[in-house]
Amino acid sequence: MKKRSCVILGCSGTVGQRLIEALYPHPWFDIVDIAASQRSAGQKYKDRMRDSWYLSSDIPDEIAEMVIKPMDPKVVEEADLAFSALPSGIAKEVEPEFAKAGYVLTSNASAFRMTEDVPLIIPEINADHLQLIDIQKEQRNWPGAICTDPNCTTIGLAMVFKPIYDRFGIEEAIMNTWQAISGAGLPGVPGLLITDNVIPYISGEEEKVISEVHKILGKFEDDHIVKADFKMAATCTRVPTIDGHFETAYIKTKEPVDIEEVKKVIREFPGLDSLGLPYAPKDPLIVREEMNRPQPRLDRMAGSVPGMSVTVGRIRPGLDEKSINLCLISHNTIRGAAGAVILNAELMCVKNYV
Amino acid sequence: MKKRSCVILGCSGTVGQRLIEALYPHPWFDIVDIAASQRSAGQKYKDRMRDSWYLSSDIPDEIAEMVIKPMDPKVVEEADLAFSALPSGIAKEVEPEFAKAGYVLTSNASAFRMTEDVPLIIPEINADHLQLIDIQKEQRNWPGAICTDPNCTTIGLAMVFKPIYDRFGIEEAIMNTWQAISGAGLPGVPGLLITDNVIPYISGEEEKVISEVHKILGKFEDDHIVKADFKMAATCTRVPTIDGHFETAYIKTKEPVDIEEVKKVIREFPGLDSLGLPYAPKDPLIVREEMNRPQPRLDRMAGSVPGMSVTVGRIRPGLDEKSINLCLISHNTIRGAAGAVILNAELMCVKNYV
Amino acid sequence: MKKRSCVILGCSGTVGQRLIEALYPHPWFDIVDIAASQRSAGQKYKDRMRDSWYLSSDIPDEIAEMVIKPMDPKVVEEADLAFSALPSGIAKEVEPEFAKAGYVLTSNASAFRMTEDVPLIIPEINADHLQLIDIQKEQRNWPGAICTDPNCTTIGLAMVFKPIYDRFGIEEAIMNTWQAISGAGLPGVPGLLITDNVIPYISGEEEKVISEVHKILGKFEDDHIVKADFKMAATCTRVPTIDGHFETAYIKTKEPVDIEEVKKVIREFPGLDSLGLPYAPKDPLIVREEMNRPQPRLDRMAGSVPGMSVTVGRIRPGLDEKSINLCLISHNTIRGAAGAVILNAELMCVKNYV
Amino acid sequence: MKKRSCVILGCSGTVGQRLIEALYPHPWFDIVDIAASQRSAGQKYKDRMRDSWYLSSDIPDEIAEMVIKPMDPKVVEEADLAFSALPSGIAKEVEPEFAKAGYVLTSNASAFRMTEDVPLIIPEINADHLQLIDIQKEQRNWPGAICTDPNCTTIGLAMVFKPIYDRFGIEEAIMNTWQAISGAGLPGVPGLLITDNVIPYISGEEEKVISEVHKILGKFEDDHIVKADFKMAATCTRVPTIDGHFETAYIKTKEPVDIEEVKKVIREFPGLDSLGLPYAPKDPLIVREEMNRPQPRLDRMAGSVPGMSVTVGRIRPGLDEKSINLCLISHNTIRGAAGAVILNAELMCVKNYV
Repeated sequence: MKKRSCVILGCSGTVGQRLIEALYPHPWFDIVDIAASQRSAGQKYKDRMRDSWYLSSDIPDEIAEMVIKPMDPKVVEEADLAFSALPSGIAKEVEPEFAKAGYVLTSNASAFRMTEDVPLIIPEINADHLQLIDIQKEQRNWPGAICTDPNCTTIGLAMVFKPIYDRFGIEEAIMNTWQAISGAGLPGVPGLLITDNVIPYISGEEEKVISEVHKILGKFEDDHIVKADFKMAATCTRVPTIDGHFETAYIKTKEPVDIEEVKKVIREFPGLDSLGLPYAPKDPLIVREEMNRPQPRLDRMAGSVPGMSVTVGRIRPGLDEKSINLCLISHNTIRGAAGAVILNAELMCVKNYV
Repeated sequence: MKKRSCVILGCSGTVGQRLIEALYPHPWFDIVDIAASQRSAGQKYKDRMRDSWYLSSDIPDEIAEMVIKPMDPKVVEEADLAFSALPSGIAKEVEPEFAKAGYVLTSNASAFRMTEDVPLIIPEINADHLQLIDIQKEQRNWPGAICTDPNCTTIGLAMVFKPIYDRFGIEEAIMNTWQAISGAGLPGVPGLLITDNVIPYISGEEEKVISEVHKILGKFEDDHIVKADFKMAATCTRVPTIDGHFETAYIKTKEPVDIEEVKKVIREFPGLDSLGLPYAPKDPLIVREEMNRPQPRLDRMAGSVPGMSVTVGRIRPGLDEKSINLCLISHNTIRGAAGAVILNAELMCVKNYV
Repeated sequence: MKKRSCVILGCSGTVGQRLIEALYPHPWFDIVDIAASQRSAGQKYKDRMRDSWYLSSDIPDEIAEMVIKPMDPKVVEEADLAFSALPSGIAKEVEPEFAKAGYVLTSNASAFRMTEDVPLIIPEINADHLQLIDIQKEQRNWPGAICTDPNCTTIGLAMVFKPIYDRFGIEEAIMNTWQAISGAGLPGVPGLLITDNVIPYISGEEEKVISEVHKILGKFEDDHIVKADFKMAATCTRVPTIDGHFETAYIKTKEPVDIEEVKKVIREFPGLDSLGLPYAPKDPLIVREEMNRPQPRLDRMAGSVPGMSVTVGRIRPGLDEKSINLCLISHNTIRGAAGAVILNAELMCVKNYV
Repeated sequence: MKKRSCVILGCSGTVGQRLIEALYPHPWFDIVDIAASQRSAGQKYKDRMRDSWYLSSDIPDEIAEMVIKPMDPKVVEEADLAFSALPSGIAKEVEPEFAKAGYVLTSNASAFRMTEDVPLIIPEINADHLQLIDIQKEQRNWPGAICTDPNCTTIGLAMVFKPIYDRFGIEEAIMNTWQAISGAGLPGVPGLLITDNVIPYISGEEEKVISEVHKILGKFEDDHIVKADFKMAATCTRVPTIDGHFETAYIKTKEPVDIEEVKKVIREFPGLDSLGLPYAPKDPLIVREEMNRPQPRLDRMAGSVPGMSVTVGRIRPGLDEKSINLCLISHNTIRGAAGAVILNAELMCVKNYV
């Protein structure tokens, strides 16, 4: 694989940090530039991050010395790919500028996720939705393109729903989340407000997870996505964990379920082995049988690519023969963000969109 | 009200501590003795608690100097009442001994909660179930009696269910909990295992909350309780909060609901004002309209009697017209334990069972 | 005592919140207006605080409905007193404006603490330094005046140093702090950076505590303060506690010490009983003998006025006969901030400076 | 290197877990048996650890299936080495039994650390103290032997003291610690007592760190250790961090210091490269220049062997020219425990004591 050049937009947040940590040693990508908001632009990366770096790995020396650029394609180095970890409001303006300038964007921003001609991809589920890029480029006449990943809360859930949806159908789902602090970015949730506490609401999160799941599980037909159709209720809360979103789902299925078979279809949910993508875990879904697993601190880094697998546990019957009760945990800044846009980028490389 | 003498069984755990803090200044009760397991018996209370006292109030001097007795009615001082904060296994053996010896037990233990002739009381809901005591005394020929309170997870939920159940009927409920560390007692959950973590299972908790809710909402007919009849699924988790259980409930009702009316019946759920009980809050259920409330750290001490009210929030429609989605928080060691057995004791006093 | 009217400058931060909680029911003061930065001005207090209120008490209804004013004495209501919880940079500009406009400022800001003609007061230690106000008014020709309290880290330390300094003299001190999150205000320290962590540096804190202690323990002579003269080294860290600064001090004394006498002079450190100030605790310094006390969560609210006493523990000999090793804890947003400016205001009232 | 067989004594605690995680893939050692107290013996390791495993790596399958033996050399498999993570009281009885039975013990227990003929080793500092083993074997007539590592609090401190002691001499030291929860083992500190708190005392810890530092920095002369001779005061506290002890030290030196030279001698403190030990980090001491480092969560896994390096920061002058103020962090269950006994074992292998 010939190395692709890339830039990082939004390099100073939690997802930007994870992108730098992961892309710097990545065998397929070369970081040629980094950009962030006006507040950060002009500073050396290491100076900007002095009080904000939250990872236990050090900033790679070469990146530490880079000067952060403003988010302008005329100033940022040319590159094959732009990894975007921008806030939605800024992404809405900036990402199309970069697509017009020829960059292929692999974005973690929510700005265009639900846009009709923009793919919302989890490679193990709906790689075929990438065909929307052809439509997008034609309609918009862009040399580049925008590809998005789902919200950190959506990804784990959608991955667990997929084999259940395919095998038993889903009629209705009630979900609850216990989300980690890193999901709110930086400065994010004040320590004063989250220590010894649960915050029972995350603005916009419940709407996102519901709409995104339906698009991801949808079918590409002709030139658009026909969304999956089932009812879903969500309560999203913040708890004092650093990384790793814990979620429970009570699922009413269309067909009667046998719990051992539910475990089997989840456990056998296929990875992307044949494609040789460095960020694709061999075991996208891990099933644990212990009553007290998964736990965020113990299971967030699970999998052959640390942080890229989702761990499912307490798979048990619901209140009737057409229902399942389970819980899961996925790493919100890896599988749920930085790892997701990297995996999407890798997929686009082998599918010749980059 | 003539003062009643009382003893505390299980004085060293989290609930025992709350009992001492609350009963010492209580206008109706006099602590005449304290007892605990063999491991603690013989020690001065202050020595035993040196590394275990978790409350910010100091141990009252008089109690601090008391020597802990073993749990034997022959050794413990005679008293009108025994407040029991014993573990279930020990309660099973010890509580009947005290009832035989003439004590009226107001117990927080789970041992006899589901026993047919033992009342499981939340005074605002089912004070009439106290009639089981007459049956219990007759059947068992005890001079004393056992009255129980529900599990800390059950109480808040049952109180919020009651007005909904009465007005709209309940068909089915899906609940999730975010339980505080103090609910596990002492030593309880190791700090090493709960910091930066969620533990998705609490042994026996889910079964308890389901069976207890049905008994509490049941009707006393002739000489027994006819339990409420609806389906319920529960997932109980532990999170890094000190006090205050947060819970969500998705409730399918029998009748169509109007959300403003749901709020109204919850808000107007009556207290026990006419009885003049010191531990009965004026406002047993508090409804908050802010999206981000209730929160354990902010709302656990809510109410006219701190820690005795349950705060309900995010009351909103579910997926159809016969469903409600909401969350609540109740203080697990006050309303959910020590305060509950005190309120039950007060009720028994005014109802002449003590 | 005739009620004094007051305004609160910087009403939205952690200290501002504590001020509102404490001043609203205060028998001597009436809150007539609240002000904050441009970002907050114009909003109803309850709307501004929706996601920032960190106290378990609710905002008093009357204050909740008040509209926040900008920090301009021409717009803010006239009042006898201005309680300032402003950041230092803003205080530097705003506080003199209010003093010129006739308000007596009782300030928690660091801006003028070390200014020659501005008193830096802990009433139990150096009430006589208030005489600087006369000099200040004369020199500056202000109808109002500025009186300051020390940094939250300084207060507990200075109060414990005072009886030791008076009885044994201090040659040198090495101090370390374990500071609570609320000390950094709001948004303050991100939850992501402080959970499961210690941050070994707080900008400007070490310099402040050293210089302030010397001024507070200084002597008013003629028209100025002659500062105390001893060497002091400090390391200030942030830890994941909500409220309550824990500190250790290793003190080299001028005279040989007897540990029981050290405890005695600390324990007998006099309060301000004769003055009848509502916020003056009967027991400004509490000595605990247990090896594992004080602890922030258990001892921060100690004292006859909750949060206004400092608890000292582990008082023991150092490495030679002229040394003491001890630890202490004081509530950083009560005794260390809001309570401190209130106590200073009360002192100024009885001393006829207001 | 021919593989050595080994057994693990005390396999279920936090250090036992780290030993299993580290020794299973270790190129020099084969785990042939595991043992623990009667309470654990007879259970499969995975069953015993169901609610106690605190590491994010899974238990290796082979170990998970092993049945825990009681701590009796007649029952435990024969082996070259015994890694001991026993509590001191049990170690006192059990370790000599194993030494008599021919095992070479590399122990993390405190029982024999200060015993005259038992080496207390940090390989980078005092590898020559291993000569005590010859004396020990001769005096006691044991086919095996006992070698110990220091307390988790001592190790980081001693490593930082060593280059300072050698270059400038140490006259006196005042130290404070912020110790992680994992240092208390399991169940260890209750979550209820450490959340939102600091506990200002750890039983026995202060005495250990003081006595151990003097032995480690001592000189082997003829047949015994001549201890280092300087005065030291310690305050040891527990804070809500999971792993990684943070410590501050105020050091009075014999010679005047230049801070840049202090940094240099620390930075250049030599590793054990020439010996080829797998657990010897290239960089035993890492100096950081940022004001806000080291931090436990960011720096505990520092170094070429994760968790085996000590990170030093805020190196600055004290109150006079013969004083240094600094802070450090070391991973208490790796460099401070499991990694320490492994490194000692490796050293004994190359020095032909095993």
